[in-house]
Amino acid sequence: MTDKTTIILDNIMTRKSVRLYTGEPVTKACLLALLKAGMAAPSARNRQPLGFVAVTDRAILDALGAGLPHTKMLSKAGACIVVCGDGSVPLQEGAKDLWHQDAAAATENILLAAEAMGLGAVWSALFPYAERENHVRTMVKLPDTVSPFSIIPIGHPAGKDLPKNKFKPEKIHWDCW
Amino acid sequence: MTDKTTIILDNIMTRKSVRLYTGEPVTKACLLALLKAGMAAPSARNRQPLGFVAVTDRAILDALGAGLPHTKMLSKAGACIVVCGDGSVPLQEGAKDLWHQDAAAATENILLAAEAMGLGAVWSALFPYAERENHVRTMVKLPDTVSPFSIIPIGHPAGKDLPKNKFKPEKIHWDCW
Repeated sequence: MTDKTTIILDNIMTRKSVRLYTGEPVTKACLLALLKAGMAAPSARNRQPLGFVAVTDRAILDALGAGLPHTKMLSKAGACIVVCGDGSVPLQEGAKDLWHQDAAAATENILLAAEAMGLGAVWSALFPYAERENHVRTMVKLPDTVSPFSIIPIGHPAGKDLPKNKFKPEKIHWDCW
Repeated sequence: MTDKTTIILDNIMTRKSVRLYTGEPVTKACLLALLKAGMAAPSARNRQPLGFVAVTDRAILDALGAGLPHTKMLSKAGACIVVCGDGSVPLQEGAKDLWHQDAAAATENILLAAEAMGLGAVWSALFPYAERENHVRTMVKLPDTVSPFSIIPIGHPAGKDLPKNKFKPEKIHWDCW
């Protein structure tokens, strides 16, 4: 393997959920790099039916966190990104729900990019929890046609989080299950 | 940005869907690296409810491709990975469908790792298409408790595929939509 390959695979293997942040701001330039990574994710039939809300406003971050059960760490995050499905993009009948897969891939790209940039981030599910969705919808003023999928708190890591080793050879089946 | 950061972000930005392969085999060592990347993906509540079928058998690859509408390129692929939800892993009531998000993140990790390794790969959706799911279920002998989610043909690229530029600044909303 080349050095480049090793660097990229290492980033995938060492990505971790980071929930403790210093409270320092995250720059718009950093957020833009994360958003570019999110938009580069694969999209079913290349429809790209996503939209992104990037929040740096302290009051909105705090209000978002206050109403979500597992995302209180927003009070110390420098920013967050809400990954959304944009219902104004027409999708083929029978493939309406594929946007969730696009949104998950975009979320993972953002997490991997954050890891690469030395930022801490964590995937917090909004879909399929109606209460969480409604809270976020209100706080960041989503139109009715837009559905929130995930919220990603982002900050400068305050601790030393370690990646989990999730490799389980018994989960691999060669040729047939 | 450090060189490492640039290398990792470049890999995310240049990942592409590759559908033309030389027909050369893909080694088990390569597949294992891809599977490790897949398992390193985030998992809701860390339940890790996924399983993976890695296929290198020529006859099974051909039979899989023959019964899928958009995955005929399996006849030239050296391998494929079927990402599955393993229903034998207990999931919390109300969070039963979160495994689809885990499976999408694992699929994206495998695609990014393939790109890093100079392999060509493409995400082909099985869920939510019952016909495709049933075909794959039969071909790789999935138990009733296991649900196929995506199939990823993998091979040595035969052409010069270019990444799409999917960056659209109008998809970004600062603080509120």
